[in-house]
Amino acid sequence: MSHEMFQRHQQTLEAALTAIDSREFWAAYPEVPSGKIYGETARDDGLAAWKSTLGNRFEIDQPGTVDWVGSERSPYGIETGTTYPQADLDVLVSAAAAAMDSWKRATPECRVGVCLEILHRLNRRSFEMGFAVMHTTGQGFMMAFQAGGPHAQDRGLEALAYAWREMNHCPSHATWTKRVSKTDTVTLDKTFRLIPRGVAVTIGCSTFPTWNSYPGIFASLATGNAVIIKPHPGAVLPLALTATIAREVLSEAGFDPNVVTMACDTPDSPVAQDLVMRPEVGIVDFTGGNAFGDWIEENARHAQVYTEKAGINTAILDGCENLKALTGNMAFSLSLYSGQMCTTPQNIYIPADGIDTPDGRVSFDDTAAAIIKALDWFLSDPARAAEVCGAIQSEDTATRVQKAATGKVLRPSGAIENERFADARTATPLVVQVDSSDTGVFQREMFGPIVYIVKTASTEESIALASDGARQHGGLTCVVYSRDDAVIEQAVDAMTDAGVATSCNLTGHIWVNQSAAFSDFHVSGANPSGNATLCDTAYVAGRFRTVACRVPVPAAVEETVG
Amino acid sequence: MSHEMFQRHQQTLEAALTAIDSREFWAAYPEVPSGKIYGETARDDGLAAWKSTLGNRFEIDQPGTVDWVGSERSPYGIETGTTYPQADLDVLVSAAAAAMDSWKRATPECRVGVCLEILHRLNRRSFEMGFAVMHTTGQGFMMAFQAGGPHAQDRGLEALAYAWREMNHCPSHATWTKRVSKTDTVTLDKTFRLIPRGVAVTIGCSTFPTWNSYPGIFASLATGNAVIIKPHPGAVLPLALTATIAREVLSEAGFDPNVVTMACDTPDSPVAQDLVMRPEVGIVDFTGGNAFGDWIEENARHAQVYTEKAGINTAILDGCENLKALTGNMAFSLSLYSGQMCTTPQNIYIPADGIDTPDGRVSFDDTAAAIIKALDWFLSDPARAAEVCGAIQSEDTATRVQKAATGKVLRPSGAIENERFADARTATPLVVQVDSSDTGVFQREMFGPIVYIVKTASTEESIALASDGARQHGGLTCVVYSRDDAVIEQAVDAMTDAGVATSCNLTGHIWVNQSAAFSDFHVSGANPSGNATLCDTAYVAGRFRTVACRVPVPAAVEETVG
Repeated sequence: MSHEMFQRHQQTLEAALTAIDSREFWAAYPEVPSGKIYGETARDDGLAAWKSTLGNRFEIDQPGTVDWVGSERSPYGIETGTTYPQADLDVLVSAAAAAMDSWKRATPECRVGVCLEILHRLNRRSFEMGFAVMHTTGQGFMMAFQAGGPHAQDRGLEALAYAWREMNHCPSHATWTKRVSKTDTVTLDKTFRLIPRGVAVTIGCSTFPTWNSYPGIFASLATGNAVIIKPHPGAVLPLALTATIAREVLSEAGFDPNVVTMACDTPDSPVAQDLVMRPEVGIVDFTGGNAFGDWIEENARHAQVYTEKAGINTAILDGCENLKALTGNMAFSLSLYSGQMCTTPQNIYIPADGIDTPDGRVSFDDTAAAIIKALDWFLSDPARAAEVCGAIQSEDTATRVQKAATGKVLRPSGAIENERFADARTATPLVVQVDSSDTGVFQREMFGPIVYIVKTASTEESIALASDGARQHGGLTCVVYSRDDAVIEQAVDAMTDAGVATSCNLTGHIWVNQSAAFSDFHVSGANPSGNATLCDTAYVAGRFRTVACRVPVPAAVEETVG
Repeated sequence: MSHEMFQRHQQTLEAALTAIDSREFWAAYPEVPSGKIYGETARDDGLAAWKSTLGNRFEIDQPGTVDWVGSERSPYGIETGTTYPQADLDVLVSAAAAAMDSWKRATPECRVGVCLEILHRLNRRSFEMGFAVMHTTGQGFMMAFQAGGPHAQDRGLEALAYAWREMNHCPSHATWTKRVSKTDTVTLDKTFRLIPRGVAVTIGCSTFPTWNSYPGIFASLATGNAVIIKPHPGAVLPLALTATIAREVLSEAGFDPNVVTMACDTPDSPVAQDLVMRPEVGIVDFTGGNAFGDWIEENARHAQVYTEKAGINTAILDGCENLKALTGNMAFSLSLYSGQMCTTPQNIYIPADGIDTPDGRVSFDDTAAAIIKALDWFLSDPARAAEVCGAIQSEDTATRVQKAATGKVLRPSGAIENERFADARTATPLVVQVDSSDTGVFQREMFGPIVYIVKTASTEESIALASDGARQHGGLTCVVYSRDDAVIEQAVDAMTDAGVATSCNLTGHIWVNQSAAFSDFHVSGANPSGNATLCDTAYVAGRFRTVACRVPVPAAVEETVG
């Protein structure tokens, strides 16, 4: 059955393998939320499916359920009232470990076949997932559909492709013959078995519950581990839906569905610390803040830990061909999901003497004003602003924005009028001007729609501050604008060495926030933002081990002949 | 120059790549210490070269030398009196970090070319290395030549092959074109740069200074890191020789020789703790005991850490076709380098009701007696015993053997008469019988020629004890003897899950201690013995990171035409 699944999706896997080798554009799952692709009734069906969860128990037939918990609240102002099984961890972790027995003995082909089928079914339910992601994360629907659906599925497939390639590097058998003298050889039959690390715990985040979790989930599953998903209590539904689909496919393929389970909790009684410290746990994937991420790294020493934590993303402005094109691009980047992407720029470094343009130098104040003007224009259309900015996921982020509005505020954060969701929690980007000496203010992650325009002595200082910030506090992205190739090279060198992916002179329909599966590495592993590199070999290679068995082969035939 | 080096050795690299994929027998460097291969004067030249180091300073032209230190003493009883540069770490670490600047920007081809040339020159000096290894580790000459020379070089080459394959998985450039509407595409030029983790510190051990260090050294060098070698103060010469050759090749290739440096210390003033905690350090490779290995894992959190620590290796005796063939094989395994290999069996599990043979059951006592008899015979020839057992590397090990001689001693440890080295520190294997309940005695690593024959209730208990020991305390190897396929399967399953490489029914010229480059994985990473897996992808993939730069390509041509 699972081999049949593998055959059914083999072409997709092969295309993914080609893509990770070329790193050219490729996507397995269509990103356009169109009825022509997903079926004419797909949107309505998805909406209805999402609505059916409201106020109800989300049934997952897994062992150890002792209660039902739920604390999600849509950032668009809807009380969802969905509850999820709360598990007795002793029962749940044991069940996951037991389920691994047959899963780990299955062939890589079997396991990858099951994973490919799970991704396929997730894709077919992308509209339902879109609504689930929208009303937990606060993303606009388009983004929720794309990032929560096909883009997340692509990232999961990418991890599968890496795991598949890596598992196939070592043959399962080898015959080893060594000449030990002029007349004699010894021969060993060697069998190489892949063994999993143990139960994998995936700790989801509240802003990208599927996109950030799928790579770890699928990499762990493919390599023979069972996965316990610990969703953020504010964004459970997208992962509960995922777990349900995974369990359904596992059962159909003849495996114990407890290969994938959920450990749901509440903000008042969190279970993640207890969960990751269980001795059965061999892998932890974490996306979230530094406090808990650092704690896991310090304490879950028995497990392979992959984290994506905080970082300071930067923009270095030295010059440009077209200031309007620059600021238009930046206004969108800053507004998209109200700055709640781990790739959104936070610090914009501009030299005190301004930037170089074909029309001469544009002063610092005029450059800053041009950014504000572009934001003003972009946010002036409420429908566009509502769709692009979405809503603020957490009350904490909303409060952070309010508290950050001190000093020289160039643009205050404001509410967005949302026609469809009057109670949506919204906030446009707050823009604050600071001096390069105010490192206590801007050299830290201020998650959410908070932007610092930093006045520096020179582009050289801009580069130094951007790279220092990344080295000390982490960082995922940097966008550099300059007309001078030497400056570009200097900035790219410095940021690359600080482990930050750089984009240069972006204008038009491509933004620094974007990270494309099969091509862009997300998190470099080379600064404090963590080591959850989507996706490279290091991200999958530690999820399994290879153990050999050697058996001598009597040299009977040769000796008889000789 | 370094490209020329690459071309010169490209065929060797390609053969190594084929070997790691097939895992069939292959070796690049001849293991036979023959004049026909290494040159008729090679042995004499090597001996003379080694002798020339005695009582002298071993000059290494590296920065920061503040004193000369030396505390080696040949286990064969010779005061060597060689001294090595002691470095001011502030100067040395800075120099290593600075040397990385041009090294990391070189192409993988350049770096791997340099590494291949280093291995080639090391190979040509294998006799000199053999004497250096013999008189630091206590290995017999044949073993010192092989394990210290060609086998270590093969392990280094294996790591190079893995690093090369891994660095080539991601292209250095890609053109990414995405359709964003019916009429428009966006195109990004993407550049992917490999960046090293930082200064790599390799902490050598006293028993296999080159074999255990080369994989980490070459994997780190190939991936762009500088390497500081911190040798065990009792086994400096083999690595000092290595560093000198590496520095010579680096200079010839136009690189800063400080890409490879030595940090030598003394037992009284160790520098390793200070060294690994330097912020410039990005990688630590450690081979040695648990106390310091665990300390590094706990404390060097800023670095990628690879360790090989203690373990309990086991033999499970359930039955055999030919008891004499079994015990003959085992006597050699136990005697080889006086049990000072990390792969030597320590615990031999035998059921109380004996083992199954074609002539019926052989009792526990008779099986144990057969092992003792085989040891007696093997050790009865002093010349053979001296060559195979070699000498005891450290006074600590010698003391441990003496103290372990309590309870039911089946064979006391004795001295070996060494014709050529009257003052050699020697010890034949001590064999002690214990009960399966004496876990406090045998469920711990007792490094050196100490063997426990454990009387168990059944083979089932033998398997449980062997796998529990590995899970809790680590373990690298297990040899299983049985006539029953079901028992073999059960034992292999249990030991594989405990991360232990198993060998079955070994007789004749193949021993459980042997671990062949390009085929056998050494250290599985799946139990407390550590994660320094020689060699798998996980061992190299974390030594570098990939960071991208994206630059938009204007869609000028297409738009003009359209």
